[in-house]
Amino acid sequence: MKNWRRIERITVITKILLEKPNLLLSMNIFTDFFQVAKSTISEDISIIKNVFQRLGYGKIQTQTGAGGGVLFSPGVSPQKKAEFLQSIADRLSDPSRILTGGFLYLTDLVFDVQVADMVGKIFAEHFGALSPQYVVTIETKGIPLAMMTAKYLNIPLVIVRDGGRVTEGSAVSLNYVTGSSRHIRTMSLSRRALPTDSKVIIIDDFMKAGGTAKGMSELLTEFKAEVLGIGVLIDTEIPEQKLVKNYTALLKLSKVDESKREIIIYPQNGEV
Amino acid sequence: MKNWRRIERITVITKILLEKPNLLLSMNIFTDFFQVAKSTISEDISIIKNVFQRLGYGKIQTQTGAGGGVLFSPGVSPQKKAEFLQSIADRLSDPSRILTGGFLYLTDLVFDVQVADMVGKIFAEHFGALSPQYVVTIETKGIPLAMMTAKYLNIPLVIVRDGGRVTEGSAVSLNYVTGSSRHIRTMSLSRRALPTDSKVIIIDDFMKAGGTAKGMSELLTEFKAEVLGIGVLIDTEIPEQKLVKNYTALLKLSKVDESKREIIIYPQNGEV
Repeated sequence: MKNWRRIERITVITKILLEKPNLLLSMNIFTDFFQVAKSTISEDISIIKNVFQRLGYGKIQTQTGAGGGVLFSPGVSPQKKAEFLQSIADRLSDPSRILTGGFLYLTDLVFDVQVADMVGKIFAEHFGALSPQYVVTIETKGIPLAMMTAKYLNIPLVIVRDGGRVTEGSAVSLNYVTGSSRHIRTMSLSRRALPTDSKVIIIDDFMKAGGTAKGMSELLTEFKAEVLGIGVLIDTEIPEQKLVKNYTALLKLSKVDESKREIIIYPQNGEV
Repeated sequence: MKNWRRIERITVITKILLEKPNLLLSMNIFTDFFQVAKSTISEDISIIKNVFQRLGYGKIQTQTGAGGGVLFSPGVSPQKKAEFLQSIADRLSDPSRILTGGFLYLTDLVFDVQVADMVGKIFAEHFGALSPQYVVTIETKGIPLAMMTAKYLNIPLVIVRDGGRVTEGSAVSLNYVTGSSRHIRTMSLSRRALPTDSKVIIIDDFMKAGGTAKGMSELLTEFKAEVLGIGVLIDTEIPEQKLVKNYTALLKLSKVDESKREIIIYPQNGEV
Protein backbone atom coordinates (compact mmCIF):
# COMPACT_ATOMS: atom_id res chain seq x y z
CA MET A 1 0.00 0.00 0.00
CA LYS A 2 1.40 3.37 -1.01
CA ASN A 3 2.43 5.95 1.54
CA TRP A 4 -0.33 8.14 2.84
CA ARG A 5 0.12 11.89 2.88
CA ARG A 6 -0.81 13.74 6.06
CA ILE A 7 -3.76 15.34 4.30
CA GLU A 8 -5.10 11.90 3.37
CA ARG A 9 -4.56 10.48 6.83
CA ILE A 10 -6.44 13.44 8.30
CA THR A 11 -9.44 12.68 6.06
CA VAL A 12 -9.52 9.07 7.20
CA ILE A 13 -8.98 9.81 10.89
CA THR A 14 -11.67 12.52 10.85
CA LYS A 15 -14.15 10.06 9.34
CA ILE A 16 -13.36 7.30 11.83
CA LEU A 17 -13.59 9.61 14.84
CA LEU A 18 -16.95 10.98 13.67
CA GLU A 19 -18.34 7.50 13.10
CA LYS A 20 -17.17 6.11 16.43
CA PRO A 21 -18.22 8.77 18.95
CA ASN A 22 -17.45 8.13 22.60
CA LEU A 23 -15.39 5.06 21.85
CA LEU A 24 -11.79 4.91 22.96
CA LEU A 25 -9.86 4.02 19.81
CA SER A 26 -6.40 2.58 20.20
CA MET A 27 -3.64 4.49 18.45
CA ASN A 28 -2.54 1.14 17.05
CA ILE A 29 -5.53 1.12 14.72
CA PHE A 30 -4.04 4.11 12.95
CA THR A 31 -0.35 3.26 13.22
CA ASP A 32 -1.04 -0.22 11.79
CA PHE A 33 -3.24 1.03 9.01
CA PHE A 34 -0.99 3.87 7.85
CA GLN A 35 2.32 2.22 8.80
CA VAL A 36 3.61 5.33 10.55
CA ALA A 37 4.93 6.11 14.02
CA LYS A 38 2.60 6.93 16.90
CA SER A 39 4.09 10.42 17.10
CA THR A 40 2.97 11.07 13.51
CA ILE A 41 -0.59 10.00 14.29
CA SER A 42 -0.53 12.13 17.44
CA GLU A 43 0.35 15.17 15.34
CA ASP A 44 -2.46 14.37 12.88
CA ILE A 45 -4.95 14.09 15.72
CA SER A 46 -3.78 17.30 17.29
CA ILE A 47 -4.57 19.16 14.05
CA ILE A 48 -8.09 17.69 13.96
CA LYS A 49 -8.50 18.42 17.67
CA ASN A 50 -7.69 22.11 17.21
CA VAL A 51 -10.14 22.48 14.31
CA PHE A 52 -12.91 20.72 16.25
CA GLN A 53 -12.26 22.86 19.30
CA ARG A 54 -12.23 26.08 17.31
CA LEU A 55 -15.57 25.29 15.64
CA GLY A 56 -17.30 23.72 18.65
CA TYR A 57 -17.56 20.28 17.05
CA GLY A 58 -16.86 18.51 20.32
CA LYS A 59 -13.95 17.32 22.39
CA ILE A 60 -11.10 15.05 21.31
CA GLN A 61 -9.18 13.52 24.20
CA THR A 62 -5.95 11.63 23.81
CA GLN A 63 -4.38 9.25 26.29
CA THR A 64 -0.70 8.47 26.12
CA GLY A 65 1.13 5.31 27.11
CA ALA A 66 0.81 1.68 26.08
CA GLY A 67 -2.96 1.67 26.45
CA GLY A 68 -3.07 5.04 24.74
CA GLY A 69 -5.94 6.04 22.57
CA VAL A 70 -8.18 8.78 21.29
CA LEU A 71 -11.79 9.51 22.18
CA PHE A 72 -14.16 11.91 20.45
CA SER A 73 -17.17 13.31 22.32
CA PRO A 74 -19.46 15.18 19.91
CA GLY A 75 -20.66 18.62 20.81
CA VAL A 76 -22.68 21.49 19.42
CA SER A 77 -21.55 25.11 19.72
CA PRO A 78 -23.86 27.35 21.81
CA GLN A 79 -24.65 29.41 18.71
CA LYS A 80 -25.63 26.38 16.59
CA LYS A 81 -27.68 25.04 19.49
CA ALA A 82 -29.58 28.31 19.90
CA GLU A 83 -30.21 28.57 16.14
CA PHE A 84 -31.42 24.99 16.02
CA LEU A 85 -33.81 25.31 18.97
CA GLN A 86 -35.20 28.56 17.55
CA SER A 87 -35.81 26.87 14.21
CA ILE A 88 -37.72 24.08 15.97
CA ALA A 89 -39.79 26.63 17.91
CA ASP A 90 -40.57 28.40 14.62
CA ARG A 91 -41.65 25.19 12.93
CA LEU A 92 -43.83 24.27 15.91
CA SER A 93 -45.55 27.66 16.03
CA ASP A 94 -47.42 26.95 12.79
CA PRO A 95 -51.16 26.91 13.73
CA SER A 96 -51.85 24.08 11.26
CA ARG A 97 -50.15 21.86 13.86
CA ILE A 98 -53.04 22.21 16.30
CA LEU A 99 -54.91 18.91 16.58
CA THR A 100 -58.38 18.41 18.01
CA GLY A 101 -58.17 18.56 21.79
CA GLY A 102 -55.39 21.14 21.81
CA PHE A 103 -52.65 18.63 20.98
CA LEU A 104 -49.68 19.56 18.84
CA TYR A 105 -48.70 17.59 15.72
CA LEU A 106 -45.07 16.62 16.36
CA THR A 107 -44.62 13.44 14.36
CA ASP A 108 -42.99 14.89 11.24
CA LEU A 109 -40.55 16.75 13.44
CA VAL A 110 -39.36 13.92 15.67
CA PHE A 111 -39.16 11.61 12.63
CA ASP A 112 -37.10 14.20 10.74
CA VAL A 113 -33.70 12.56 10.94
CA GLN A 114 -31.77 15.84 10.85
CA VAL A 115 -33.76 17.04 13.86
CA ALA A 116 -33.38 13.75 15.71
CA ASP A 117 -29.67 13.80 14.94
CA MET A 118 -29.15 17.26 16.45
CA VAL A 119 -31.31 16.50 19.51
CA GLY A 120 -29.31 13.31 20.02
CA LYS A 121 -26.06 15.23 19.87
CA ILE A 122 -27.31 17.84 22.36
CA PHE A 123 -28.50 15.22 24.87
CA ALA A 124 -25.34 13.14 24.43
CA GLU A 125 -23.22 16.18 25.25
CA HIS A 126 -25.48 17.09 28.18
CA PHE A 127 -25.65 13.66 29.82
CA GLY A 128 -22.29 12.26 28.70
CA ALA A 129 -20.41 13.24 31.86
CA LEU A 130 -22.79 11.09 33.94
CA SER A 131 -21.57 7.99 32.03
CA PRO A 132 -24.93 6.30 31.46
CA GLN A 133 -24.88 2.70 30.24
CA TYR A 134 -28.28 2.65 28.47
CA VAL A 135 -30.74 5.08 26.94
CA VAL A 136 -34.33 4.17 27.76
CA THR A 137 -37.43 5.42 25.94
CA ILE A 138 -41.02 4.32 25.34
CA GLU A 139 -42.46 3.64 21.91
CA THR A 140 -43.13 5.29 19.50
CA LYS A 141 -42.39 8.99 19.14
CA GLY A 142 -39.46 9.07 21.53
CA ILE A 143 -37.52 6.42 19.62
CA PRO A 144 -35.69 8.56 17.01
CA LEU A 145 -34.47 11.06 19.63
CA ALA A 146 -33.43 8.32 22.06
CA MET A 147 -31.75 6.41 19.31
CA MET A 148 -29.60 9.31 18.18
CA THR A 149 -28.68 10.05 21.80
CA ALA A 150 -27.60 6.43 22.17
CA LYS A 151 -25.63 6.64 18.93
CA TYR A 152 -23.63 9.66 20.08
CA LEU A 153 -23.08 8.19 23.55
CA ASN A 154 -22.15 4.85 21.98
CA ILE A 155 -24.45 2.92 24.34
CA PRO A 156 -27.44 0.65 23.61
CA LEU A 157 -31.03 1.76 23.32
CA VAL A 158 -33.75 0.09 25.39
CA ILE A 159 -37.37 0.51 24.34
CA VAL A 160 -40.24 0.13 26.78
CA ARG A 161 -43.30 -1.25 25.00
CA ASP A 162 -46.56 0.64 25.15
CA GLY A 163 -49.10 -1.98 26.25
CA GLY A 164 -48.70 -5.45 27.63
CA ARG A 165 -47.97 -7.30 24.41
CA VAL A 166 -44.36 -8.43 24.59
CA THR A 167 -43.40 -11.58 22.71
CA GLU A 168 -39.83 -11.64 23.94
CA GLY A 169 -39.79 -13.97 26.91
CA SER A 170 -40.68 -12.85 30.42
CA ALA A 171 -41.40 -9.19 30.92
CA VAL A 172 -42.22 -6.73 33.68
CA SER A 173 -45.44 -4.78 33.18
CA LEU A 174 -46.65 -1.67 34.97
CA ASN A 175 -50.05 -0.03 34.99
CA TYR A 176 -49.70 3.70 35.29
CA VAL A 177 -51.89 6.77 35.18
CA THR A 178 -51.05 9.35 32.52
CA GLY A 179 -50.47 12.56 34.40
CA SER A 180 -52.62 14.83 32.29
CA SER A 181 -55.51 12.82 30.85
CA ARG A 182 -55.75 10.48 33.88
CA HIS A 183 -56.04 7.36 31.74
CA ILE A 184 -54.77 4.02 32.97
CA ARG A 185 -52.24 2.49 30.60
CA THR A 186 -49.76 -0.35 30.61
CA MET A 187 -46.07 -0.36 29.76
CA SER A 188 -43.79 -3.41 29.63
CA LEU A 189 -40.13 -4.22 29.37
CA SER A 190 -38.66 -7.59 28.49
CA ARG A 191 -36.43 -9.01 31.26
CA ARG A 192 -33.62 -9.65 28.81
CA ALA A 193 -33.67 -6.09 27.46
CA LEU A 194 -31.86 -4.57 30.44
CA PRO A 195 -29.38 -6.13 32.91
CA THR A 196 -30.04 -5.36 36.58
CA ASP A 197 -28.15 -2.54 38.33
CA SER A 198 -27.68 -0.52 35.13
CA LYS A 199 -27.21 3.25 35.02
CA VAL A 200 -29.64 4.78 32.54
CA ILE A 201 -31.00 8.02 31.16
CA ILE A 202 -34.59 8.41 29.94
CA ILE A 203 -35.25 10.30 26.68
CA ASP A 204 -38.70 11.20 25.35
CA ASP A 205 -40.31 13.71 23.00
CA PHE A 206 -42.86 15.38 25.20
CA MET A 207 -43.70 15.88 28.89
CA LYS A 208 -46.93 17.34 30.20
CA ALA A 209 -47.49 16.15 33.77
CA GLY A 210 -44.68 13.61 33.66
CA GLY A 211 -46.82 10.50 34.20
CA THR A 212 -45.07 8.52 31.50
CA ALA A 213 -41.61 9.44 32.75
CA LYS A 214 -42.66 8.56 36.30
CA GLY A 215 -44.05 5.24 35.06
CA MET A 216 -40.80 4.47 33.29
CA SER A 217 -38.80 5.34 36.41
CA GLU A 218 -40.97 2.98 38.46
CA LEU A 219 -40.70 0.22 35.91
CA LEU A 220 -36.92 0.67 35.94
CA THR A 221 -36.74 0.17 39.72
CA GLU A 222 -37.93 -3.39 38.99
CA PHE A 223 -34.64 -3.77 37.11
CA LYS A 224 -32.74 -2.07 39.98
CA ALA A 225 -31.71 0.56 37.43
CA GLU A 226 -30.45 3.97 38.49
CA VAL A 227 -32.00 6.83 36.50
CA LEU A 228 -29.22 9.40 36.14
CA GLY A 229 -31.31 11.92 34.24
CA ILE A 230 -34.34 12.55 32.06
CA GLY A 231 -34.28 14.54 28.82
CA VAL A 232 -37.31 15.63 26.81
CA LEU A 233 -37.54 17.72 23.67
CA ILE A 234 -40.54 19.73 24.91
CA ASP A 235 -42.22 20.24 28.25
CA THR A 236 -45.31 22.32 29.03
CA GLU A 237 -45.67 25.35 31.28
CA ILE A 238 -48.81 23.85 32.83
CA PRO A 239 -48.96 21.92 35.10
CA GLU A 240 -45.98 23.59 36.74
CA GLN A 241 -45.47 20.72 39.18
CA LYS A 242 -44.39 17.62 37.27
CA LEU A 243 -44.51 14.10 38.65
CA VAL A 244 -40.74 13.74 38.15
CA LYS A 245 -37.88 16.01 39.17
CA ASN A 246 -34.48 16.57 37.61
CA TYR A 247 -35.39 16.53 33.98
CA THR A 248 -34.07 18.67 31.14
CA ALA A 249 -36.33 20.10 28.42
CA LEU A 250 -35.00 21.81 25.30
CA LEU A 251 -38.17 23.77 24.55
CA LYS A 252 -41.09 24.99 26.63
CA LEU A 253 -44.65 24.94 25.31
CA SER A 254 -46.43 27.85 26.89
CA LYS A 255 -49.81 27.74 25.18
CA VAL A 256 -51.89 25.96 22.54
CA ASP A 257 -55.07 27.98 21.98
CA GLU A 258 -57.40 25.92 19.81
CA SER A 259 -59.98 28.69 19.25
CA LYS A 260 -57.52 31.52 18.58
CA ARG A 261 -55.29 29.11 16.56
CA GLU A 262 -52.25 30.21 18.51
CA ILE A 263 -49.18 28.33 19.72
CA ILE A 264 -46.52 29.79 21.99
CA ILE A 265 -43.32 27.82 22.35
CA TYR A 266 -39.76 28.95 23.04
CA PRO A 267 -36.26 27.51 23.41
CA GLN A 268 -34.79 26.90 26.86
CA ASN A 269 -31.23 27.79 26.02
CA GLY A 270 -30.11 27.83 29.63
CA GLU A 271 -31.01 24.17 30.12
CA VAL A 272 -28.30 22.60 28.00
CA MET B 1 -10.78 35.03 11.10
CA LYS B 2 -7.29 33.72 10.42
CA ASN B 3 -6.41 31.92 7.22
CA TRP B 4 -7.21 28.25 7.12
CA ARG B 5 -4.58 25.78 6.02
CA ARG B 6 -5.57 23.12 3.50
CA ILE B 7 -5.24 20.43 6.15
CA GLU B 8 -7.71 22.29 8.36
CA ARG B 9 -10.17 22.91 5.53
CA ILE B 10 -10.06 19.21 4.67
CA THR B 11 -11.02 18.34 8.26
CA VAL B 12 -14.02 20.68 8.15
CA ILE B 13 -15.18 19.65 4.66
CA THR B 14 -14.90 15.96 5.52
CA LYS B 15 -17.06 16.49 8.60
CA ILE B 16 -19.71 18.48 6.73
CA LEU B 17 -19.93 15.98 3.87
CA LEU B 18 -20.30 13.07 6.30
CA GLU B 19 -23.02 14.85 8.25
CA LYS B 20 -25.02 15.89 5.20
CA PRO B 21 -25.23 12.72 3.10
CA ASN B 22 -27.12 12.89 -0.18
CA LEU B 23 -27.54 16.63 0.05
CA LEU B 24 -26.23 18.85 -2.74
CA LEU B 25 -24.07 21.41 -0.95
CA SER B 26 -23.27 24.61 -2.78
CA MET B 27 -19.58 25.37 -3.20
CA ASN B 28 -20.39 28.83 -1.90
CA ILE B 29 -20.86 27.43 1.60
CA PHE B 30 -17.17 26.58 1.62
CA THR B 31 -15.80 29.55 -0.35
CA ASP B 32 -17.69 31.95 1.94
CA PHE B 33 -16.65 30.22 5.10
CA PHE B 34 -12.96 29.85 4.26
CA GLN B 35 -12.66 32.97 2.10
CA VAL B 36 -10.87 31.16 -0.67
CA ALA B 37 -11.45 30.66 -4.40
CA LYS B 38 -13.74 27.95 -5.73
CA SER B 39 -10.76 26.28 -7.42
CA THR B 40 -9.08 25.88 -4.03
CA ILE B 41 -12.16 24.19 -2.57
CA SER B 42 -12.41 21.98 -5.65
CA GLU B 43 -8.87 20.78 -5.04
CA ASP B 44 -9.66 20.12 -1.38
CA ILE B 45 -12.71 18.09 -2.34
CA SER B 46 -10.81 16.14 -4.95
CA ILE B 47 -8.35 14.98 -2.28
CA ILE B 48 -11.21 13.81 -0.04
CA LYS B 49 -12.91 12.19 -3.03
CA ASN B 50 -9.86 10.11 -3.86
CA VAL B 51 -9.46 8.90 -0.29
CA PHE B 52 -13.15 7.99 -0.05
CA GLN B 53 -13.00 6.15 -3.36
CA ARG B 54 -9.88 4.28 -2.44
CA LEU B 55 -11.36 3.04 0.85
CA GLY B 56 -14.92 2.41 -0.37
CA TYR B 57 -16.44 5.13 1.84
CA GLY B 58 -18.92 6.15 -0.85
CA LYS B 59 -19.13 8.47 -3.83
CA ILE B 60 -18.44 12.19 -3.93
CA GLN B 61 -19.87 13.92 -6.99
CA THR B 62 -19.09 17.49 -7.94
CA GLN B 63 -21.05 19.70 -10.30
CA THR B 64 -19.41 22.67 -11.91
CA GLY B 65 -20.93 25.96 -13.00
CA ALA B 66 -22.91 28.65 -11.20
CA GLY B 67 -25.20 26.14 -9.52
CA GLY B 68 -22.19 23.97 -8.79
CA GLY B 69 -22.01 21.86 -5.71
CA VAL B 70 -20.85 18.70 -4.08
CA LEU B 71 -22.85 15.64 -3.08
CA PHE B 72 -21.72 12.72 -0.94
CA SER B 73 -23.48 9.34 -1.20
CA PRO B 74 -22.27 7.02 1.58
CA GLY B 75 -21.21 3.52 0.71
CA VAL B 76 -19.77 0.42 2.28
CA SER B 77 -16.98 -1.58 0.66
CA PRO B 78 -17.91 -5.16 -0.35
CA GLN B 79 -15.41 -6.50 2.17
CA LYS B 80 -16.81 -4.47 5.09
CA LYS B 81 -20.33 -5.43 4.06
CA ALA B 82 -19.49 -9.14 4.00
CA GLU B 83 -17.71 -8.93 7.37
CA PHE B 84 -20.63 -7.04 8.88
CA LEU B 85 -23.30 -9.46 7.63
CA GLN B 86 -21.25 -12.44 8.82
CA SER B 87 -20.91 -10.86 12.28
CA ILE B 88 -24.71 -10.43 12.42
CA ALA B 89 -25.24 -14.05 11.35
CA ASP B 90 -22.81 -15.15 14.08
CA ARG B 91 -24.60 -13.10 16.74
CA LEU B 92 -27.97 -14.48 15.63
CA SER B 93 -26.80 -18.10 15.70
CA ASP B 94 -26.61 -18.09 19.50
CA PRO B 95 -29.20 -20.67 20.70
CA SER B 96 -30.12 -18.49 23.70
CA ARG B 97 -31.95 -16.32 21.16
CA ILE B 98 -34.62 -18.97 20.60
CA LEU B 99 -37.93 -17.82 22.07
CA THR B 100 -40.94 -20.01 22.81
CA GLY B 101 -42.72 -20.81 19.56
CA GLY B 102 -39.51 -20.90 17.54
CA PHE B 103 -39.17 -17.12 17.30
CA LEU B 104 -35.79 -15.42 17.31
CA TYR B 105 -34.88 -12.66 19.78
CA LEU B 106 -33.79 -9.75 17.57
CA THR B 107 -34.53 -6.69 19.67
CA ASP B 108 -31.06 -6.03 21.08
CA LEU B 109 -29.65 -6.31 17.58
CA VAL B 110 -31.98 -3.94 15.73
CA PHE B 111 -31.76 -1.45 18.63
CA ASP B 112 -27.96 -1.63 18.55
CA VAL B 113 -27.22 1.70 16.95
CA GLN B 114 -23.98 0.56 15.32
CA VAL B 115 -25.90 -2.25 13.61
CA ALA B 116 -28.76 0.01 12.59
CA ASP B 117 -26.26 2.53 11.27
CA MET B 118 -24.54 -0.01 9.03
CA VAL B 119 -27.83 -1.51 7.80
CA GLY B 120 -29.05 2.02 7.01
CA LYS B 121 -25.91 2.73 5.02
CA ILE B 122 -26.24 -0.53 3.06
CA PHE B 123 -29.91 0.09 2.19
CA ALA B 124 -29.25 3.74 1.34
CA GLU B 125 -26.55 2.70 -1.11
CA HIS B 126 -28.77 -0.05 -2.54
CA PHE B 127 -31.93 2.01 -3.05
CA GLY B 128 -30.36 5.44 -3.60
CA ALA B 129 -30.34 5.24 -7.39
CA LEU B 130 -34.15 4.86 -7.38
CA SER B 131 -34.44 8.33 -5.78
CA PRO B 132 -37.10 7.52 -3.18
CA GLN B 133 -38.76 10.46 -1.40
CA TYR B 134 -39.75 8.70 1.83
CA VAL B 135 -38.75 5.67 3.86
CA VAL B 136 -41.79 3.84 5.27
CA THR B 137 -41.76 1.32 8.11
CA ILE B 138 -44.15 -0.05 10.73
CA GLU B 139 -43.59 0.29 14.46
CA THR B 140 -41.64 -0.86 16.43
CA LYS B 141 -38.67 -3.03 15.55
CA GLY B 142 -38.23 -1.71 12.01
CA ILE B 143 -37.85 1.89 13.15
CA PRO B 144 -34.08 2.05 13.86
CA LEU B 145 -33.18 0.44 10.53
CA ALA B 146 -35.62 2.60 8.58
CA MET B 147 -34.46 5.69 10.36
CA MET B 148 -30.81 5.18 9.54
CA THR B 149 -31.72 4.43 5.93
CA ALA B 150 -33.64 7.71 5.85
CA LYS B 151 -30.71 9.52 7.43
CA TYR B 152 -28.25 8.34 4.79
CA LEU B 153 -30.71 9.03 1.96
CA ASN B 154 -31.52 12.42 3.49
CA ILE B 155 -35.28 11.85 3.17
CA PRO B 156 -38.02 11.76 5.82
CA LEU B 157 -39.17 8.71 7.71
CA VAL B 158 -42.86 7.74 7.80
CA ILE B 159 -44.05 5.32 10.46
CA VAL B 160 -47.17 3.24 10.04
CA ARG B 161 -48.84 2.67 13.40
CA ASP B 162 -49.52 -0.86 14.58
CA GLY B 163 -53.21 -0.83 15.58
CA GLY B 164 -55.95 1.70 14.99
CA ARG B 165 -55.03 4.23 17.66
CA VAL B 166 -53.84 7.35 15.88
CA THR B 167 -54.35 10.69 17.59
CA GLU B 168 -53.05 12.75 14.72
CA GLY B 169 -56.07 13.87 12.75
CA SER B 170 -57.69 11.71 10.08
CA ALA B 171 -55.98 8.44 9.25
CA VAL B 172 -56.31 5.52 6.88
CA SER B 173 -56.58 2.11 8.55
CA LEU B 174 -56.21 -1.32 7.04
CA ASN B 175 -57.08 -4.73 8.45
CA TYR B 176 -54.65 -7.30 7.20
CA VAL B 177 -53.84 -10.95 7.77
CA THR B 178 -50.33 -11.74 8.95
CA GLY B 179 -48.93 -14.15 6.41
CA SER B 180 -47.53 -16.74 8.78
CA SER B 181 -49.69 -16.82 11.90
CA ARG B 182 -52.92 -15.90 10.06
CA HIS B 183 -53.97 -13.32 12.65
CA ILE B 184 -56.06 -10.32 11.70
CA ARG B 185 -54.38 -7.06 12.67
CA THR B 186 -54.81 -3.38 11.98
CA MET B 187 -52.29 -0.81 10.75
CA SER B 188 -52.93 2.92 10.32
CA LEU B 189 -51.27 5.93 8.80
CA SER B 190 -52.14 9.55 9.46
CA ARG B 191 -53.27 11.42 6.34
CA ARG B 192 -50.83 14.22 7.01
CA ALA B 193 -47.88 11.88 7.39
CA LEU B 194 -47.43 11.29 3.64
CA PRO B 195 -48.33 13.49 0.64
CA THR B 196 -50.15 11.70 -2.18
CA ASP B 197 -48.19 10.47 -5.23
CA SER B 198 -44.95 9.97 -3.28
CA LYS B 199 -42.22 7.54 -4.26
CA VAL B 200 -41.28 5.39 -1.27
CA ILE B 201 -39.24 2.42 -0.11
CA ILE B 202 -40.35 0.09 2.69
CA ILE B 203 -37.79 -1.03 5.30
CA ASP B 204 -38.45 -3.63 8.00
CA ASP B 205 -36.50 -5.98 10.23
CA PHE B 206 -38.01 -9.35 9.39
CA MET B 207 -40.09 -11.04 6.69
CA LYS B 208 -41.64 -14.47 6.99
CA ALA B 209 -44.58 -14.74 4.61
CA GLY B 210 -44.59 -11.03 3.78
CA GLY B 211 -48.07 -10.24 5.13
CA THR B 212 -46.96 -7.08 6.87
CA ALA B 213 -45.08 -5.79 3.82
CA LYS B 214 -48.09 -6.59 1.63
CA GLY B 215 -50.37 -4.78 4.11
CA MET B 216 -48.11 -1.73 4.03
CA SER B 217 -48.07 -1.76 0.23
CA GLU B 218 -51.88 -1.86 0.19
CA LEU B 219 -52.16 0.90 2.74
CA LEU B 220 -49.77 2.99 0.64
CA THR B 221 -51.98 2.66 -2.45
CA GLU B 222 -54.55 4.67 -0.47
CA PHE B 223 -51.96 7.46 -0.56
CA LYS B 224 -51.32 6.81 -4.26
CA ALA B 225 -47.71 6.09 -3.30
CA GLU B 226 -45.39 4.17 -5.57
CA VAL B 227 -43.36 1.50 -3.73
CA LEU B 228 -39.97 1.47 -5.46
CA GLY B 229 -38.52 -1.30 -3.34
CA ILE B 230 -38.66 -3.25 -0.09
CA GLY B 231 -35.65 -3.98 2.12
CA VAL B 232 -35.59 -6.29 5.14
CA LEU B 233 -32.73 -7.30 7.37
CA ILE B 234 -33.76 -10.98 7.49
CA ASP B 235 -36.13 -13.16 5.50
CA THR B 236 -36.93 -16.82 6.03
CA GLU B 237 -36.35 -19.77 3.74
CA ILE B 238 -39.89 -21.03 4.41
CA PRO B 239 -42.42 -20.21 3.02
CA GLU B 240 -40.52 -19.88 -0.23
CA GLN B 241 -43.35 -17.98 -1.90
CA LYS B 242 -43.76 -14.59 -0.24
CA LEU B 243 -46.80 -12.35 -0.54
CA VAL B 244 -44.65 -9.56 -2.00
CA LYS B 245 -42.15 -9.63 -4.83
CA ASN B 246 -39.08 -7.51 -5.47
CA TYR B 247 -37.68 -7.27 -1.99
CA THR B 248 -34.10 -7.39 -0.81
CA ALA B 249 -33.01 -9.30 2.30
CA LEU B 250 -29.54 -9.03 3.81
CA LEU B 251 -29.66 -12.35 5.67
CA LYS B 252 -31.60 -15.56 5.22
CA LEU B 253 -32.93 -17.52 8.18
CA SER B 254 -32.88 -21.16 7.20
CA LYS B 255 -33.93 -22.88 10.39
CA VAL B 256 -34.83 -22.36 14.04
CA ASP B 257 -35.03 -25.75 15.72
CA GLU B 258 -36.50 -25.30 19.18
CA SER B 259 -35.88 -28.85 20.39
CA LYS B 260 -32.33 -29.19 19.05
CA ARG B 261 -31.57 -25.57 20.05
CA GLU B 262 -30.17 -24.85 16.63
CA ILE B 263 -30.32 -21.75 14.42
CA ILE B 264 -29.09 -21.60 10.83
CA ILE B 265 -28.77 -18.15 9.29
CA TYR B 266 -26.43 -16.85 6.62
CA PRO B 267 -25.59 -13.61 4.77
CA GLN B 268 -26.98 -12.98 1.30
CA ASN B 269 -23.98 -11.15 -0.05
CA GLY B 270 -25.21 -11.25 -3.63
CA GLU B 271 -28.33 -9.25 -2.77
CA VAL B 272 -26.71 -5.88 -2.12
